[in-house]
Amino acid sequence: MTDCQGDVEGASTPMELYEKLSEQGVKVRSLKSAKADKTKVDTAVQLLLKLKMDYKQMTGHDYKAGCPPSENDAAPNNGPAADVAGEDDTVDPWTVSTTNAKGVDYDKLIVRFGSSKIDQELVDRIEKVCGQKPHRFLRRGVFFSHRDMHQVLDAYEKHKSFYLYTGRGPSSEAMHVGHLIPFIFTKWLQDVFDIPLVIQLTDDEKYLWKDLTVEECHRFAIENAKDIIACGFDINKTFIFSDLDYMGSSPEFYRNVVKIQKHVTFNQVKGIFGFTDSDCIGKISFPAIQAAPSFSNSFPHVFGSRKDIQCLIPCAIDQDPYFRMTRDVAPRIGYPKPALLHSTFFPALQGAQTKMSASDANSSIFLTDTPKQIKNKINKHAFSGGKDTVEEHRKYGGNADVDVSFMYLTFFLEDDEQLEKIRQDYTSGALLTGELKKILIETLQPMIAQHQERRKQVTDDLVKQFMTPRPLNFNL
Amino acid sequence: MTDCQGDVEGASTPMELYEKLSEQGVKVRSLKSAKADKTKVDTAVQLLLKLKMDYKQMTGHDYKAGCPPSENDAAPNNGPAADVAGEDDTVDPWTVSTTNAKGVDYDKLIVRFGSSKIDQELVDRIEKVCGQKPHRFLRRGVFFSHRDMHQVLDAYEKHKSFYLYTGRGPSSEAMHVGHLIPFIFTKWLQDVFDIPLVIQLTDDEKYLWKDLTVEECHRFAIENAKDIIACGFDINKTFIFSDLDYMGSSPEFYRNVVKIQKHVTFNQVKGIFGFTDSDCIGKISFPAIQAAPSFSNSFPHVFGSRKDIQCLIPCAIDQDPYFRMTRDVAPRIGYPKPALLHSTFFPALQGAQTKMSASDANSSIFLTDTPKQIKNKINKHAFSGGKDTVEEHRKYGGNADVDVSFMYLTFFLEDDEQLEKIRQDYTSGALLTGELKKILIETLQPMIAQHQERRKQVTDDLVKQFMTPRPLNFNL
Repeated sequence: MTDCQGDVEGASTPMELYEKLSEQGVKVRSLKSAKADKTKVDTAVQLLLKLKMDYKQMTGHDYKAGCPPSENDAAPNNGPAADVAGEDDTVDPWTVSTTNAKGVDYDKLIVRFGSSKIDQELVDRIEKVCGQKPHRFLRRGVFFSHRDMHQVLDAYEKHKSFYLYTGRGPSSEAMHVGHLIPFIFTKWLQDVFDIPLVIQLTDDEKYLWKDLTVEECHRFAIENAKDIIACGFDINKTFIFSDLDYMGSSPEFYRNVVKIQKHVTFNQVKGIFGFTDSDCIGKISFPAIQAAPSFSNSFPHVFGSRKDIQCLIPCAIDQDPYFRMTRDVAPRIGYPKPALLHSTFFPALQGAQTKMSASDANSSIFLTDTPKQIKNKINKHAFSGGKDTVEEHRKYGGNADVDVSFMYLTFFLEDDEQLEKIRQDYTSGALLTGELKKILIETLQPMIAQHQERRKQVTDDLVKQFMTPRPLNFNL
Repeated sequence: MTDCQGDVEGASTPMELYEKLSEQGVKVRSLKSAKADKTKVDTAVQLLLKLKMDYKQMTGHDYKAGCPPSENDAAPNNGPAADVAGEDDTVDPWTVSTTNAKGVDYDKLIVRFGSSKIDQELVDRIEKVCGQKPHRFLRRGVFFSHRDMHQVLDAYEKHKSFYLYTGRGPSSEAMHVGHLIPFIFTKWLQDVFDIPLVIQLTDDEKYLWKDLTVEECHRFAIENAKDIIACGFDINKTFIFSDLDYMGSSPEFYRNVVKIQKHVTFNQVKGIFGFTDSDCIGKISFPAIQAAPSFSNSFPHVFGSRKDIQCLIPCAIDQDPYFRMTRDVAPRIGYPKPALLHSTFFPALQGAQTKMSASDANSSIFLTDTPKQIKNKINKHAFSGGKDTVEEHRKYGGNADVDVSFMYLTFFLEDDEQLEKIRQDYTSGALLTGELKKILIETLQPMIAQHQERRKQVTDDLVKQFMTPRPLNFNL
């Protein structure tokens, strides 16, 4: 069952839904102009959004006030609207949005970005090379796209090792479950390939982009490092660094930053990142700082002066623009191009049209949430692919493709068979939305509690150790 | 006597000079197309340039092939052309040029840049506050412009100290005598005010602007540091740093760089420095790196976390754009604006239309030149304000205002009376060009020999000491 149900009952034609939407729009406006109680306004807005989504699903296009639907807008029996996604998806390091409730069209993104799909053949090959069952993120297409992964495996088979690089922009103290995705997967890669890992905390970036002080951003970096360490990384193979610290601690790192900055023009970053003449020069030059850890001699304490050690970057696909730029520059400054593994976004509770964002508390389940908060947020906010009444749900079944609770389970439920059974039961109508949410709650509550337990064990001293430039276990 | 004399004899009207110029132009072109001996071509080109300068002086405007002079072009008896300078002077960190043989119009530059003239009152005040005879660079207007120097002195009188910051872009191993100007004056300031000094070597800038490797630029920085140390700076009060090293050694310095970068837009650096969309992002963000040493907390080993210690920057006026930007940013990030003392340029041997440039060997007297090289260069290349024959010179006298040898003496000859006598004798015709050049040669030869002797004493270990971040003698 959805949470914002009720009023949609009986709206079986596009025109009826259109009228309900118009009414609800008037209601929201009048509540707002009357400066009504915030909870009331929020509830009304949520219903409006839900109606808009239903309208889009039913008619295949967006609701527009004053433009009633035409007769052709009747969509097939409750099925999803025709696929109109892809073209108008926005995916860059600062914005992820789509009008499609299933989320971004990742196949189209692969074409647009010019990367390669992680197909079954590659998953099988990873399994063969590392001798381990592929991680559920590989089995389920959470990591869905790559650049040069075959090349990394070719070299690894010939005993040429590589290193991992991932990162996080510490925009607040609070990390949410979505932030764990790259770290969970990176830890797995570190374990199965037995290789070093560098983790960049771009506190300088957050200072440049947000209304925060340098000190705040640096503090967030340290706090976030604790959550990252709690993911279980091997201290003998992991170096975590804050840009604000490491840039001022490593001449070799700064030399690589300057080399990159010499080989990228404003025209290029304008094209890649959409910078304008009004952007500050810090933003304009920052991409070089995110690029530099892709080159092994940025970490002389780990790799000495070796500049030829291949880097593999697991990250969400929205970070790819940085690394397209990096791969363009690499050969011109005599370095190997980094390889990449791209993940999908972790959807907001409200639906896969946007990713979970720490700056919107209602969209996120935080790593600091209590079991009760987790339960309430999921029950209250998790967008449901279920029908509006139990009767309808039993009759037509739910839509797992747009159901946020089901999506979260694909990220966190390890058992493939159990997940598939949930999908089937939900689609058939045998499993109700409340029941599905309960499974998710019972998956997340212990997972987050365990994370909190591990984080408690992370002392300031341990953070300091992880963040000290030092040799790591690495077989050159 | 000028060096490239001879053919100009008898050219007493603009039209005669115009015809000689046309002939000489044809001669140069035919020599070049015949791929003649380099020395021959050079001699012909120098005569062409000399003729062009004479033509400009005689007519008040540039020679243009195919455009013979009009009757109005006859200038008064051999005097300098009317002052047309100022408007078309180019002065920025990369180009200094003017069409006026006397050099850039510095009074107009003060108006254009919005700085203040160092007038007699300020010179007297400096003398009073520091209790020393003002340096010849102050007495003779070599340092001619300032920003906030009175404020620095006000505070100093109230026992609030300040620190000095100057720098150099190490574009080659070879420094020339012109490069010494800011360092000679800064050493004097350090001595008379008893204050710490930081010297920035912008090896990163040179890497970004020139076709050089990072390693070459860094090596040039170290070599240049030796020449700077040879100027006699007090090791207990002086910190010299290479950007490529210090940026990667001081988180505090990088924090200030990022703070500045957040508060300057591309529009601003476009306006100030003329950057374009085709410039690399390294150039675009570099101004923040030259700005950062203006703030005392960039040097925690010297000033702790104090961010309120006033900075005074002695530099050539072409560096002012960087510090206009710095002064604009300072209050917005909670720092005091740096004060400035601006020097004129050190003219090229060929004349004050441009500054001495290490990249043009013939324009420069290097700190590595032998006594013989110094003698030859001055005799061969130093542009003369003398007349073309001894007879004319005795009759009309020389023009000290455009005479490069005389200009150099204003920089390096300490004795005011002797200098004034040379000026008078040269202007009256009593002193011939050859004799003037001899005085300059005999001034520079021992000066440079002594510099070379001091530089020999500068060991690698001493360089390392100067370049190690460490506490300096400073009375907070």
